[in-house]
Amino acid sequence: MERPLDALNQAKGKKVIIDLKNRKQVIGTLMAFDIHPNVVIDNAEEREDGKIVRKLGRIFIRGDMVVMIAPA
Amino acid sequence: MERPLDALNQAKGKKVIIDLKNRKQVIGTLMAFDIHPNVVIDNAEEREDGKIVRKLGRIFIRGDMVVMIAPA
Amino acid sequence: MERPLDALNQAKGKKVIIDLKNRKQVIGTLMAFDIHPNVVIDNAEEREDGKIVRKLGRIFIRGDMVVMIAPA
Amino acid sequence: MERPLDALNQAKGKKVIIDLKNRKQVIGTLMAFDIHPNVVIDNAEEREDGKIVRKLGRIFIRGDMVVMIAPA
Amino acid sequence: MERPLDALNQAKGKKVIIDLKNRKQVIGTLMAFDIHPNVVIDNAEEREDGKIVRKLGRIFIRGDMVVMIAPA
Amino acid sequence: MERPLDALNQAKGKKVIIDLKNRKQVIGTLMAFDIHPNVVIDNAEEREDGKIVRKLGRIFIRGDMVVMIAPA
Amino acid sequence: MERPLDALNQAKGKKVIIDLKNRKQVIGTLMAFDIHPNVVIDNAEEREDGKIVRKLGRIFIRGDMVVMIAPA
Repeated sequence: MERPLDALNQAKGKKVIIDLKNRKQVIGTLMAFDIHPNVVIDNAEEREDGKIVRKLGRIFIRGDMVVMIAPA
Repeated sequence: MERPLDALNQAKGKKVIIDLKNRKQVIGTLMAFDIHPNVVIDNAEEREDGKIVRKLGRIFIRGDMVVMIAPA
Repeated sequence: MERPLDALNQAKGKKVIIDLKNRKQVIGTLMAFDIHPNVVIDNAEEREDGKIVRKLGRIFIRGDMVVMIAPA
Repeated sequence: MERPLDALNQAKGKKVIIDLKNRKQVIGTLMAFDIHPNVVIDNAEEREDGKIVRKLGRIFIRGDMVVMIAPA
Repeated sequence: MERPLDALNQAKGKKVIIDLKNRKQVIGTLMAFDIHPNVVIDNAEEREDGKIVRKLGRIFIRGDMVVMIAPA
Repeated sequence: MERPLDALNQAKGKKVIIDLKNRKQVIGTLMAFDIHPNVVIDNAEEREDGKIVRKLGRIFIRGDMVVMIAPA
Repeated sequence: MERPLDALNQAKGKKVIIDLKNRKQVIGTLMAFDIHPNVVIDNAEEREDGKIVRKLGRIFIRGDMVVMIAPA
């Protein structure tokens, strides 16, 4: 792997967990990303302290909110 | 979908819920957005802890305040 | 409307309410704005917890302080 | 007025009050500014909770500290 | 060594510990980095107060979250 | 004076007091600055609550830490 | 000295103390820096409240974490 965004490219279409700076997490399918990385997540669930707090559908997350993106 | 902003383009003219960094939410019709994404929301309602706290009409929200944008 | 700044252009010369990141509000006439959006407000009143705390005249507000701009 | 910085140009040589992000205020004569807007204030007084806490002479203030600039 | 990113290049394929701005740590193999530096870590473990709190697999970490990167 | 950085140029070689965003102050001779403004201070003393807490010699301060620069 | 980064160039290969925004300090030999300034420190020790809390070896520190760099 040459560049970090290659890892996001490999994760496209797969289920990921995104840690956000507001200490919440979003879990769902990675549909799209850009260099910031702004991301679009499908079938998104928001979790707080390990519990699902909202089902959100297809959402846009602003890139500067992202802490890390891991496989779910 | 290729780019995250495509998701916002698909949401144009529809009702969205925007989570803001000040932990408030704005619900209304997505009228316009740009790459930041600054957004314009029509018939905007501001919510805090799930309750409507203000009806705001057509508002401009600065892009760096956006956490996520979801269908309402 | 194509771009979010079009909404500010339509608000020019009208009374607006600006929510700031320091949780204060400024109400007055929108005289000028740029892409940040830095704004100039005339006959500006500063409010905190719904009360007028200062009358400020014609003021310059740094764009990164803006949360949202709504009709007043 | 076309651009927000025009308002600062009109204030040049006049007494202004600058609200800073650290919740202090600086009052004095606006000598120079740029697009950030970094500013130079002459005969600057620093105020906190409405009281003068320091007389500072001619000072440089970093632009990102500025909340708003009003006539004094 | 001429440039700081040379040090990351030398660490590629090796085990590193990354201190994050949210006061957590990630330990694992440095797979990729860019100039921000966004990083990809393989076999990532998240630690908090010295204890492993999550095993995360191959993760993407946003560059602005990085405090420091050290050999593990 | 045309530009704010002119004021720093006039202060070069003179004793200045720099207020930092961490609420500390550095006092010493302004040796160099750039547009951020990163600064180099010679014979630097760090003060906290008006007391000297460290003598630091010749130091580099990152520009984004600067609140204001005043004559000492 | 013309530019602030010249001071870092003079410190290259010497022992420095770096104050970080998380209120920790890193002491060690300055190996490399760039304009942000990201830095590489060799034989790095992390200090908190004046005590060594970790020996870290050769580390990369993200430039935006730097408050100041002083001779050690």
